[in-house]
Amino acid sequence: MEKKLVSIVMGSDSDLPVMKQAAEILDTFGIGYEIDIVSAHRTPEKLFEYASNAHIRGIHAIIAGAGGAAHLPGMVAAISPLPVIGVPIKSSNSIDGWDSVLSILQMPGGVPVATVALNGAKNAGILAAQIISSTDDAIRNKIIRFKQEMKEQVTVKSENLKSSN
Amino acid sequence: MEKKLVSIVMGSDSDLPVMKQAAEILDTFGIGYEIDIVSAHRTPEKLFEYASNAHIRGIHAIIAGAGGAAHLPGMVAAISPLPVIGVPIKSSNSIDGWDSVLSILQMPGGVPVATVALNGAKNAGILAAQIISSTDDAIRNKIIRFKQEMKEQVTVKSENLKSSN
Amino acid sequence: MEKKLVSIVMGSDSDLPVMKQAAEILDTFGIGYEIDIVSAHRTPEKLFEYASNAHIRGIHAIIAGAGGAAHLPGMVAAISPLPVIGVPIKSSNSIDGWDSVLSILQMPGGVPVATVALNGAKNAGILAAQIISSTDDAIRNKIIRFKQEMKEQVTVKSENLKSSN
Amino acid sequence: MEKKLVSIVMGSDSDLPVMKQAAEILDTFGIGYEIDIVSAHRTPEKLFEYASNAHIRGIHAIIAGAGGAAHLPGMVAAISPLPVIGVPIKSSNSIDGWDSVLSILQMPGGVPVATVALNGAKNAGILAAQIISSTDDAIRNKIIRFKQEMKEQVTVKSENLKSSN
Amino acid sequence: MEKKLVSIVMGSDSDLPVMKQAAEILDTFGIGYEIDIVSAHRTPEKLFEYASNAHIRGIHAIIAGAGGAAHLPGMVAAISPLPVIGVPIKSSNSIDGWDSVLSILQMPGGVPVATVALNGAKNAGILAAQIISSTDDAIRNKIIRFKQEMKEQVTVKSENLKSSN
Amino acid sequence: MEKKLVSIVMGSDSDLPVMKQAAEILDTFGIGYEIDIVSAHRTPEKLFEYASNAHIRGIHAIIAGAGGAAHLPGMVAAISPLPVIGVPIKSSNSIDGWDSVLSILQMPGGVPVATVALNGAKNAGILAAQIISSTDDAIRNKIIRFKQEMKEQVTVKSENLKSSN
Amino acid sequence: MEKKLVSIVMGSDSDLPVMKQAAEILDTFGIGYEIDIVSAHRTPEKLFEYASNAHIRGIHAIIAGAGGAAHLPGMVAAISPLPVIGVPIKSSNSIDGWDSVLSILQMPGGVPVATVALNGAKNAGILAAQIISSTDDAIRNKIIRFKQEMKEQVTVKSENLKSSN
Amino acid sequence: MEKKLVSIVMGSDSDLPVMKQAAEILDTFGIGYEIDIVSAHRTPEKLFEYASNAHIRGIHAIIAGAGGAAHLPGMVAAISPLPVIGVPIKSSNSIDGWDSVLSILQMPGGVPVATVALNGAKNAGILAAQIISSTDDAIRNKIIRFKQEMKEQVTVKSENLKSSN
Repeated sequence: MEKKLVSIVMGSDSDLPVMKQAAEILDTFGIGYEIDIVSAHRTPEKLFEYASNAHIRGIHAIIAGAGGAAHLPGMVAAISPLPVIGVPIKSSNSIDGWDSVLSILQMPGGVPVATVALNGAKNAGILAAQIISSTDDAIRNKIIRFKQEMKEQVTVKSENLKSSN
Repeated sequence: MEKKLVSIVMGSDSDLPVMKQAAEILDTFGIGYEIDIVSAHRTPEKLFEYASNAHIRGIHAIIAGAGGAAHLPGMVAAISPLPVIGVPIKSSNSIDGWDSVLSILQMPGGVPVATVALNGAKNAGILAAQIISSTDDAIRNKIIRFKQEMKEQVTVKSENLKSSN
Repeated sequence: MEKKLVSIVMGSDSDLPVMKQAAEILDTFGIGYEIDIVSAHRTPEKLFEYASNAHIRGIHAIIAGAGGAAHLPGMVAAISPLPVIGVPIKSSNSIDGWDSVLSILQMPGGVPVATVALNGAKNAGILAAQIISSTDDAIRNKIIRFKQEMKEQVTVKSENLKSSN
Repeated sequence: MEKKLVSIVMGSDSDLPVMKQAAEILDTFGIGYEIDIVSAHRTPEKLFEYASNAHIRGIHAIIAGAGGAAHLPGMVAAISPLPVIGVPIKSSNSIDGWDSVLSILQMPGGVPVATVALNGAKNAGILAAQIISSTDDAIRNKIIRFKQEMKEQVTVKSENLKSSN
Repeated sequence: MEKKLVSIVMGSDSDLPVMKQAAEILDTFGIGYEIDIVSAHRTPEKLFEYASNAHIRGIHAIIAGAGGAAHLPGMVAAISPLPVIGVPIKSSNSIDGWDSVLSILQMPGGVPVATVALNGAKNAGILAAQIISSTDDAIRNKIIRFKQEMKEQVTVKSENLKSSN
Repeated sequence: MEKKLVSIVMGSDSDLPVMKQAAEILDTFGIGYEIDIVSAHRTPEKLFEYASNAHIRGIHAIIAGAGGAAHLPGMVAAISPLPVIGVPIKSSNSIDGWDSVLSILQMPGGVPVATVALNGAKNAGILAAQIISSTDDAIRNKIIRFKQEMKEQVTVKSENLKSSN
Repeated sequence: MEKKLVSIVMGSDSDLPVMKQAAEILDTFGIGYEIDIVSAHRTPEKLFEYASNAHIRGIHAIIAGAGGAAHLPGMVAAISPLPVIGVPIKSSNSIDGWDSVLSILQMPGGVPVATVALNGAKNAGILAAQIISSTDDAIRNKIIRFKQEMKEQVTVKSENLKSSN
Repeated sequence: MEKKLVSIVMGSDSDLPVMKQAAEILDTFGIGYEIDIVSAHRTPEKLFEYASNAHIRGIHAIIAGAGGAAHLPGMVAAISPLPVIGVPIKSSNSIDGWDSVLSILQMPGGVPVATVALNGAKNAGILAAQIISSTDDAIRNKIIRFKQEMKEQVTVKSENLKSSN
């Protein structure tokens, strides 16, 4: 069985449609992951236990998504020594996403959260892969190939646009 | 000795110049309080213990101030059953205070934080007194007198303005 | 008959779909309340009379919701000695809710409004219950149980997510 | 003695350095005015009495300035039938002036406040003069002359700039 | 025939659904008005002629609505000695209305625009009526009655809410 | 004598410290220019005459700077067929520059203003040179050299940084 | 065959519905153009080659549109000596367009991008035509005629509005 | 000699006072790094070469800081397969830092930048160390110790606060 290197957590099951994009891209890269709901505000003890143990279980990077006053990524980063990637989510209770972005991004000195774009769970997955790739040449090569494929997709669209004009 | 009914916590000692205004107004009302530094991001275990026990120690209301990605008030509210008053602080690492305000105010359904104005620690102290006054007529009367005094101060300033014109 | 401890007012009947969430959570806690429309801008005399008398009628906490240039919570707080909880509402005449939030939150020193999240009427109800619970152990225990139930709901969702992956 | 046609009120004496610019421009136009401090939040009864009576005393337009959660202009407009000009003030407790602007500007349908720029008390004075001028040709002519003088000042500065290049 | 005392202009015919609310409220007050499209950016000569002549034709107040980089109200105010009421419109080319609001509100010293809320054309009409009422007791009385009717409507809604609970 | 190809105008002499950076960069490129104060709000007739005639006088591009509700660039663009470069200025009466930026940038379809960064008068000058260079190889070569020099300055600073570490 | 004087590029084919408005207005003016997809983030080498060569191919002006963290216009401007017109696009991954606007507008000194309104591709096309018109009287006259036609369209709408009232 | 695992680049030498905080924290962790100025806008060829080669030289993570329309982090991420940490800098040409934050954070799907708080270079250094620690137990232990030390500093300050009250 594939080793789980990345842990994906989200504050609410309503975050799942966004957060599963992180899982999908990790599937693409063949990187094992676990996925769970951990609410900073409704399950604080679980948050504590989760964040205290993730590195002991062999996790290399954590992806945490939340919306509104989004405390999950920052609190995980407070407790865990692992790199934590934060995904601000434009949830229904958010003011256009600004609250999610600012409460994840603006962490104080000493406790970083690697923040990606609003709803940017796909990029969170890629970033986790890049972190793992820093000492894993196979993943590094997959990332290089992934970039190459994005380039080729643009080239195809460019040809289509030019031939239709 | 005076019973401590209010607990004032802040994320950093740099918040003290703002947060001591909450203490001063409680002194005015003759309400006992404790004051401490509890950092959600640097002392998460202390946060947990503090928030789990405050109501057991007889505290009636908590005032929590923090700046930037300000998670202290919301995390205390996640753990404690007490009413939590949040003071957004315009700290040096804040983007004009918007991060502090939004990461305290925009709590999800189920976990309220009673948020006051940016740097509004004085109002946090008054609010704590009002909470206590709901079943304490002596404090209620002090609040009514406090409002009366504010009115009289404006009247004096109004007279000064009119006599100088 | 149940004693009315909380008073819920709103600036317009269009605020009712949001504000009734405060009433529903108070029903859950078994706390009596009254509910009415009081417009700061269209019924200023009623505002005055209402805010002057609420504490005399035995109300312990006021919940006031309004949108746009939302003056109702602040004006009630100016007149009444009671703790006032403000609910900013994203009404149709609001600029993305920013006007509602800022005109309730940014009260001057001396006159606090305990502001909750945009459309956060449910949290306003919980906060009112927490205020009452400061000297009412039965309500305190209900709040502790309420927190416990939220935790259990997340646990169920967590199990569902893990079993579906 | 000159008849007082304009009433200038402000929420705090700290607003005076801005608000006296309204008085000065009215002096320039030779329009009588009264000036006072009326705090919506600290002197609500005075606000009520003031706003109820201004039109009876012969006032033609009200200028009201306030900062932060600025309720004075809107509450005066709620009570008085007179045109109310609101001056948002960037006070020390304001978030870059946005709270002052939005809580004065975004009045609900039925209760207008004629809002001017942040700290724009001079323009509030001119607007009051324009209101009076609608049936007073002498004031109308003074406004036309005032516009002419602004034009001439620009012409002088234009000449200076061109001659120095 | 009714004398036209108010002039309503807008930058585009797409502003008509909002701006006709100004016309409707003036109809209610029995105040004559003219209505036209004057685009600062597409018909600058017409703007000039319009703004130069309005006061000569006997107009007492101008209502000007525009969206995006909204220059019509400010340019009319630059040219005409009349009081100009600006209506920021949330047009399709606007960034959430902020551009419309700021480019109308933030006029420089010397050239006021009486700005109302985003899409607040109804309030612009009421403000125009209030300006006219400053020397017209019949209109003054209509405004007082209008305020009374708003109050009664709230009272009815309040009764309905209370009887349904 | 050098032919004047660019016209620099600003709404107020207080804009000069910023706007002279446009003049200086045009001096560097050896491109003739005129410079003047034209206030949309205080000298609307001059604005009209200026914008109507600039292309007739042989001007190839206009640079217009203004702050607050900044109508000068847009109104010049409304009248003149020339390309108009707008410089938003963070003047003392501006709300952090947002009003200047939005009232210049957000022009309606049909009337463009080429907007540069807040206080970006230097870039406005470079853009004017680029416009002229589209059919002037000597200026084109100067722009290429200018870019080369910027590169070399960074290289020097890079060497300094590396040698000091 | 018509000479291609303008080059239109966009970061993604999802930008085409907005960006083709630039093409359409250039068709109206009879100005030849090329159109392509060049992604700064997915095809950086193509960006480099494209921006290095455009002026050599005889292009006079570049129009570049992108959304979110929009780097295409600025990077083209970094490499090419040509005037670059930037079109901020409110793409699905944008925070209300603010990210697109600010990451195109706020270029550092030395590297201008002529920014137009959010989604303002039509104006980008007009601006390109104005740049070409600076030494092309035929295009100049078409621009003057275009402005005349806009004026006439407003006049027709004005007549319709007045005849329907 | 220590192997260089982290590369720190910045868009301008004016960013050095902020960016050197990343270097200092890497010194603390005993992690080798290189530091240089690479301007996306003024040295685009150097940017290309730098970003193409960094992973070949053995770099494990890149820290890139820039202000205003900050394209450096995103363009490095477009070219390099390495994890890129972006530091938004509140430079003098920035609108309160919003432009820096949004143009680094809001990267499109496929090209992540791990964004830290405004001016958060210290956290960027810690994040780089965390990335390296994912397969380096010695660094992992240093991070755990670093977190412990932060905790102890708060404890000392807490004691000081309590003993002074």
